[in-house]
Amino acid sequence: MIVFHMPGTERLGRVAYELGAPTGEVEIHHFPDGESRVRFIGEVRGQEVALVAELHRPDRKILPLLFAVATARELGARSVGLVVPYLPYMRQDRAFRPGEGVTARQFVSLLSHDLDWLVTVDPHLHRIRSLGEVCRLPAETVHAAPLLAEWIREHVEHPLVVGPDGESHQWVASVAALVGAPHMVMTKRRVSDCRVELTLPPLTRHNGRSPVLVDDIVSSGATMAGAVRALTDAGWPAPACLAVHALFAPGARQLLHAAGAAAVVTTNTVAHASNQVDVGGLLAKGISRRVSQRVRAGIAG
Amino acid sequence: MIVFHMPGTERLGRVAYELGAPTGEVEIHHFPDGESRVRFIGEVRGQEVALVAELHRPDRKILPLLFAVATARELGARSVGLVVPYLPYMRQDRAFRPGEGVTARQFVSLLSHDLDWLVTVDPHLHRIRSLGEVCRLPAETVHAAPLLAEWIREHVEHPLVVGPDGESHQWVASVAALVGAPHMVMTKRRVSDCRVELTLPPLTRHNGRSPVLVDDIVSSGATMAGAVRALTDAGWPAPACLAVHALFAPGARQLLHAAGAAAVVTTNTVAHASNQVDVGGLLAKGISRRVSQRVRAGIAG
Repeated sequence: MIVFHMPGTERLGRVAYELGAPTGEVEIHHFPDGESRVRFIGEVRGQEVALVAELHRPDRKILPLLFAVATARELGARSVGLVVPYLPYMRQDRAFRPGEGVTARQFVSLLSHDLDWLVTVDPHLHRIRSLGEVCRLPAETVHAAPLLAEWIREHVEHPLVVGPDGESHQWVASVAALVGAPHMVMTKRRVSDCRVELTLPPLTRHNGRSPVLVDDIVSSGATMAGAVRALTDAGWPAPACLAVHALFAPGARQLLHAAGAAAVVTTNTVAHASNQVDVGGLLAKGISRRVSQRVRAGIAG
Repeated sequence: MIVFHMPGTERLGRVAYELGAPTGEVEIHHFPDGESRVRFIGEVRGQEVALVAELHRPDRKILPLLFAVATARELGARSVGLVVPYLPYMRQDRAFRPGEGVTARQFVSLLSHDLDWLVTVDPHLHRIRSLGEVCRLPAETVHAAPLLAEWIREHVEHPLVVGPDGESHQWVASVAALVGAPHMVMTKRRVSDCRVELTLPPLTRHNGRSPVLVDDIVSSGATMAGAVRALTDAGWPAPACLAVHALFAPGARQLLHAAGAAAVVTTNTVAHASNQVDVGGLLAKGISRRVSQRVRAGIAG
């Protein structure tokens, strides 16, 4: 196996380190007319290729990535797998109005077209319950919950794990179980694109605990900021905010700080100043499982 | 048949007009996290859909386009064809260095994945001789030569049609034949990315004629500007510069004017201030041929 890094994924160097695999680089040249050209620096022929790619802000990155997959094939790779720490487009999981399609399904189908396997961290699955529903290729989902739980155990005494809304319940429950702490989930009402109202359930029995907010994605920051306010308004200490995927639209981090977040902590699935948790080891484990399954199934022989 | 316009293709309204077909619109919404959502405004179910798309500066446009194709399928289109006046990536027709793939082939393969047919104007084919070599779906190439010839007949007396290099020979010869004028082709030597040296063949027997430069693509403008200079240095009057695809990297137009071009005229396959020739009618003819072939083959029934 050889691990190739697409540009912008150097922070995930632990993937190859944990696998004990050599690394290579995929260079992207951008021409003045807006076209791209990819080039593999490293041995591809006969190799099991793991391609580590960044897909946050996906539209400009997809074509070089698809070219890289096709080029690995042309260069004689034995197999090509994709390691994509943040899988975009999963929130577009239904046609919201007439004339629309289900973009989440279309995106995964496009991505998986020429791949042997895919490894990703906590895709945002809501109406689509598992990647298998939209993905024809073997997809391995790894979970950041143990890493977030570890951070909480190390940094927060007597935590209460809090989710800002019903959709966050799956993350919150599993993190809380791993921490060995209680958890609760707020009720969210969206007032507009940038404003939400959050309601706390009765929490008196948790008095004395330190709330920690957990969600999978921070994007506009409005939900997380609203949750911080709901807690402090109710007399709770300022909570730390933990998230897996640090999308952070412009102004989102300021919004969290203005709301009074005690800390903002994310994994490095998306590069951001708040990254404190490295998912490299997690991805390496997912790759090992996926590739050993291929070997067991006799595909890689 | 219904003609749907992707954003930025409104200038090609003549396509639907000549076909006598109704039109619809594909709306693209861009989310703050860099994702897109497409939406068809118009009837798709049961229709033969012709999707008019702009692909100059392709990398940011490809994903919404592929979503549109997939969405038309989801919405129940009977067939989906793509009308793409400028087909990008055709110049990347070989692996120039080890580690590279043949991007032209990869791009067309990606594009054709879910389509029934494709119509385009004069793809830049050099080492790849026809779209059929790289494209599994029925592709109809229409030629702008008659439109460029018409412009020359209307605007230039006693023309001499001149190509700046050997690659332009195919365009130059067919335009000259349609004009009923002589033609010649210069010899090009590329000194650097932005500088070329052009050599004129002996031209004394064409004295008294007005040179008109013709090429398929103007990108950096260096080749065309070098050709203008080679002509005026040899004592010929300043030539008009005609091209099919107006890619025009920043500074390219200024380069042509500084070289002394008498006029810069392009077709509207790529939107640019120099557009004077409408390819809408041409595209409509290509669509008619393609769709009537499908009907004859019994595919559309």
